[in-house]
Amino acid sequence: MDLLASVIGQVEKPDDRKPVLVIKPEFWDGVLQLDKFSHIIVLWWITERDNPEDRSNLRDYPPQESAELSGVFASRSPARPTPIGHSIVGIESLNDKTREIRIDQIDAFDGTPIVDIKPYMPTSDRVDNAIVPEWFRSNVPRYTKT
Amino acid sequence: MDLLASVIGQVEKPDDRKPVLVIKPEFWDGVLQLDKFSHIIVLWWITERDNPEDRSNLRDYPPQESAELSGVFASRSPARPTPIGHSIVGIESLNDKTREIRIDQIDAFDGTPIVDIKPYMPTSDRVDNAIVPEWFRSNVPRYTKT
Repeated sequence: MDLLASVIGQVEKPDDRKPVLVIKPEFWDGVLQLDKFSHIIVLWWITERDNPEDRSNLRDYPPQESAELSGVFASRSPARPTPIGHSIVGIESLNDKTREIRIDQIDAFDGTPIVDIKPYMPTSDRVDNAIVPEWFRSNVPRYTKT
Repeated sequence: MDLLASVIGQVEKPDDRKPVLVIKPEFWDGVLQLDKFSHIIVLWWITERDNPEDRSNLRDYPPQESAELSGVFASRSPARPTPIGHSIVGIESLNDKTREIRIDQIDAFDGTPIVDIKPYMPTSDRVDNAIVPEWFRSNVPRYTKT
């Protein structure tokens, strides 16, 4: 069984502007109706961690102060068995000519391969009363007020 | 560049109980601290759609009434270039002996390979005022009241 992801585009981070997701020409048809959504889930490949050492990592310390040693499935460590990144981002604009999706932010490097984009659906993706360990409670909320 | 996902476990759906994520013994160390979270993001491989025809699909109709033809990156269609499933689920319990994470629900078949688990972090994963097209507005919210 080969679980091989397809690259549909890449992240580009111009110095002076918001980041863009540049979609390969052959995948741009998949973007139809995306202008009706405000937010997307971007799945990207953490290429710089796609090596045997990082992929065998199972525990480390989250960067937050007072964080306890955590399993990688209980943290967002980039060093993990499947080095896949997951970012919720806001759409700023779509450009049909350059096949670019301009977004508000993304925690991925310039040139990062994008393997999937899914629309953010509040009915299945939003959790109002999620519990997290103490060390994550000081994180600054990005798209909520509480 | 090989973007090959690692299988860390599989979904099991007993007829009479809630579904479980059965983690392979060699990956169980990665679950440390997961008991401090209420919800997780499960990334799984849509094996039944991992074929050339489904992976070349770029547009189809979401199952909602009145839905318009949509690109797969603007829908949650399982037929998409990278057949990766994304589910937000609630944790019911963890069992260190059987290495099982019992969850409240998941929209994946019995035997589905799990390729990653990430803790749900409201500060980056929750969006309070996301916009979706009209045809998704009648979906029933799972973990919110609005």
